[in-house]
Amino acid sequence: MKFSGKRDSEDGTVSGSALFGRHPLTEPLSDVGDVQFFDTTLRDGEQAPGVSLSPDEKAHIAGLLDDANVDVIEAGSACTGPGERKTISRVADLDLDATVTSFCRGIKNDVDLALDCGVDGVDIVVPASDRHVVDKVGTSREENVQDTVELVEYAKEHGLWVEVIGEDGSRADLDYLEELLGAAMDAGADRICWADTVGHATPDGAVEAVSRLSELGPVSTHTHDDLGLAVMNALVSVAAGADMVHGTINGIGERAGNVALEEVAIALDHGYGVETMDLTKAYELGELVANATGMPLPPNKAVVGANAFTHESGIHTDGTLKDDAMYEPYPPEKVGRERRLALGKHAGRAGVEAALEERNFDVTDEELGEIVQRVKEIGDRGRRVTDADLITIAEEVQGAEHDRRVELLDLTTVAGGGTPTASVRLSVDGEERKEAEVGSGPVDAALNAIQSALGHAADTHLESYHVDAITGGTDAVVTVEVEMSRGDRTVAVTASDSDITRASVHAMVDAIDRLIADDSEHVIADD
Amino acid sequence: MKFSGKRDSEDGTVSGSALFGRHPLTEPLSDVGDVQFFDTTLRDGEQAPGVSLSPDEKAHIAGLLDDANVDVIEAGSACTGPGERKTISRVADLDLDATVTSFCRGIKNDVDLALDCGVDGVDIVVPASDRHVVDKVGTSREENVQDTVELVEYAKEHGLWVEVIGEDGSRADLDYLEELLGAAMDAGADRICWADTVGHATPDGAVEAVSRLSELGPVSTHTHDDLGLAVMNALVSVAAGADMVHGTINGIGERAGNVALEEVAIALDHGYGVETMDLTKAYELGELVANATGMPLPPNKAVVGANAFTHESGIHTDGTLKDDAMYEPYPPEKVGRERRLALGKHAGRAGVEAALEERNFDVTDEELGEIVQRVKEIGDRGRRVTDADLITIAEEVQGAEHDRRVELLDLTTVAGGGTPTASVRLSVDGEERKEAEVGSGPVDAALNAIQSALGHAADTHLESYHVDAITGGTDAVVTVEVEMSRGDRTVAVTASDSDITRASVHAMVDAIDRLIADDSEHVIADD
Repeated sequence: MKFSGKRDSEDGTVSGSALFGRHPLTEPLSDVGDVQFFDTTLRDGEQAPGVSLSPDEKAHIAGLLDDANVDVIEAGSACTGPGERKTISRVADLDLDATVTSFCRGIKNDVDLALDCGVDGVDIVVPASDRHVVDKVGTSREENVQDTVELVEYAKEHGLWVEVIGEDGSRADLDYLEELLGAAMDAGADRICWADTVGHATPDGAVEAVSRLSELGPVSTHTHDDLGLAVMNALVSVAAGADMVHGTINGIGERAGNVALEEVAIALDHGYGVETMDLTKAYELGELVANATGMPLPPNKAVVGANAFTHESGIHTDGTLKDDAMYEPYPPEKVGRERRLALGKHAGRAGVEAALEERNFDVTDEELGEIVQRVKEIGDRGRRVTDADLITIAEEVQGAEHDRRVELLDLTTVAGGGTPTASVRLSVDGEERKEAEVGSGPVDAALNAIQSALGHAADTHLESYHVDAITGGTDAVVTVEVEMSRGDRTVAVTASDSDITRASVHAMVDAIDRLIADDSEHVIADD
Repeated sequence: MKFSGKRDSEDGTVSGSALFGRHPLTEPLSDVGDVQFFDTTLRDGEQAPGVSLSPDEKAHIAGLLDDANVDVIEAGSACTGPGERKTISRVADLDLDATVTSFCRGIKNDVDLALDCGVDGVDIVVPASDRHVVDKVGTSREENVQDTVELVEYAKEHGLWVEVIGEDGSRADLDYLEELLGAAMDAGADRICWADTVGHATPDGAVEAVSRLSELGPVSTHTHDDLGLAVMNALVSVAAGADMVHGTINGIGERAGNVALEEVAIALDHGYGVETMDLTKAYELGELVANATGMPLPPNKAVVGANAFTHESGIHTDGTLKDDAMYEPYPPEKVGRERRLALGKHAGRAGVEAALEERNFDVTDEELGEIVQRVKEIGDRGRRVTDADLITIAEEVQGAEHDRRVELLDLTTVAGGGTPTASVRLSVDGEERKEAEVGSGPVDAALNAIQSALGHAADTHLESYHVDAITGGTDAVVTVEVEMSRGDRTVAVTASDSDITRASVHAMVDAIDRLIADDSEHVIADD
């Protein structure tokens, strides 16, 4: 968590000592010391509509956050119910290095419930704008200050670490916010928090508020992304004196979400040499949270999105092959990831040639031109170009089409009622084989039937099975992508059909055929 | 596109006259005049891996961008191939108010190809950093300037509007960038562009570069989101003198994507009273681009995400019921949307009560408490709580369970091979009915069989059918959400099963039963 200045774009060294240096707009406001991370994935993140985390999931996420050196973990909101309290206790019992807290409304009972969970501290939210003080809670400015003071004293008497959040602080009268949070500090609070609860603030507002609150004691900043400014407001808050940033993994949360901690971390690290969380854990955390919450990672999400280190267009692929850093600000390894080159409608010669070399194809200039052309044609139809597509095209162009060893002759699936059942008729090395199997659904049954027909000598494994979200009607075309492996070889194949069972089985059979095509020595025993 | 100052948080009025006013960090750099939007969804956006837009899709998107008052539309990159050129010509022929351009590398042939497409202008990208000038293109700084000048003169002689983009400008030697783009302006270019091609820049760098380039002529800013700073860098560029912002709808694009134009627009509008595009078109544009590209809208995306105006947690729902603006920075109508209250594990009494009232339930305090409890239990299991769930719970708690009028007794689907076929056995008002139908897949066939068994007197329609992405194995549990309507009533139901046909049919039958349950007058004729 040290601050060491500005990172050089060419050699990655860090020099200088000012955050936002060199210009009136970006004059340093203060020397930036430690910046701590307060993670609220398990509370504000979980408040996103449709999200609910089980005790096991929360414990798993908390453990990984702790491994990543996050400083405070807000485990939930004790007042939500008995299920939530059990979960908070579970996290509190993990004995993490991080401070574990519960969110509390400005109500004594909420603090008592948090105490029952055995947390280290509480985040007490009290109304700060008149809209919240008067219209929502129905109290007065004066009573609100008094209630806050009493509650802080109560929590401190019970040995809790206490942070007081002024709810809707970005729309509050700043003089009153100062009075309210100043009183909280005087009453013994450990820190106070400027909250842009509804994502209303612009950076000038953030800077003014945080600068003034910093005079009162340690300040946290809590930003939301309704205007797309969550990262910006977090960064200018740090420049204005905040030493703790509230946020969530992947930026999940109410409405447009909280600020994404991994984005604040990479911006501070790459841009200013400020270390916060362990960024090499960012991708693992991002995937864990996406899977547990059911909120998928957008492909174009900074740091953790599927495309963040993927290059498809010819210009970019060509450049990347010459120099990894040509089209990347920082290497993927920095955030626990790998670079990927993809082929599609913008493919160029250099990228296709590199992909072919990787697969041991030796092509002439003329062949390469034709292969590039056909790769682009697939891309033009809006399809991903998979390994299998590229190999098939290259073989066809070279007139070296492989003989199919496995072909689907017939498929029948029965489902809906009793036990999902499927039968397949395959041609395997010219010999016809039929098998029927059951499964947990028609696709699962069909996969079992194929594996059974091939016998385990074929030894292929389904590594992943993915269907994009289906929207529209029941007659929408479904695209299935499977990745299958055999030994240390892996191949990805996609297939589309309005019948999901047919698309799935075609993709799997093509993948299996591709995996055993080169292995002419190997007879597929009918065991 | 006028600038009128800062918007008041309470009453929405705009006052003052300085972008980023009132503080050293945010001192105004210049008076902000017009800010124009340059949309590159159809070029840089389409370069995202796996994305390809058809000519119809590009024309449709371009038309809506023009309706939304976007100033420049980059329709594609003419050098990509004949398919792309046909598409660019199609957009150029639409006779839009916007300036239509093609992207060109710094090569005369690219400009010729753009001219063939009949575009109004070209965006010529020339290397700017040594990494790109020397390592990628293999030229020298001097030759690069000379080539750029000649190309600009050539394009201007042919009557084109010309913008010159210094590729990788954020990692370029700023003195050289100034020399290169200054030469382009002297040669007759209409504007120059500071490009943070790889998403490397921090706001101090953006401000310094754009301030200096602004001395040379009109400047555009082109930002990427690899550090989560795309919006921040676009805004500080505007403050530093840029009068045109490059970006894409939904922020799609290479790697972590370009800056999202709708986010820049709402930040400038809400925060500073600067009007750019017509924001009421933002949602329609967002959905159109998401559907055409297959890049789904993240639920927590600012402005256009499904959750951006959805409130689930008890505190937020309660507050929103008292005052729409309690937990929103701006009303959803501003961006062409509606507010939604959802129920889940964080539900509170006020939200559940409001939802029940909307559905004409009159419950006692005690009943309400039990209903809230059971809603939270469903939420605790990580499930969305649909209308049908709420009504079923309320009926059970009030001991007024409705008699099912439609029940699924048996379902069989056959698919994979010839014609997907399904049969259903239903109990309809106590009478057993069987029907078989075909369809484009097993689910489609089953839906047809149900509709056929009910006869058109039931008059229910499938409004939407959605399956979340399936990841994992072929035995994963699939969640299907259907929305069905009858007359002016709509009901949403979800069902989960590892057999997708079973989940789909259960959801549809439950929805139909729910829709006709209240209509006891109506006999479902067996027509």
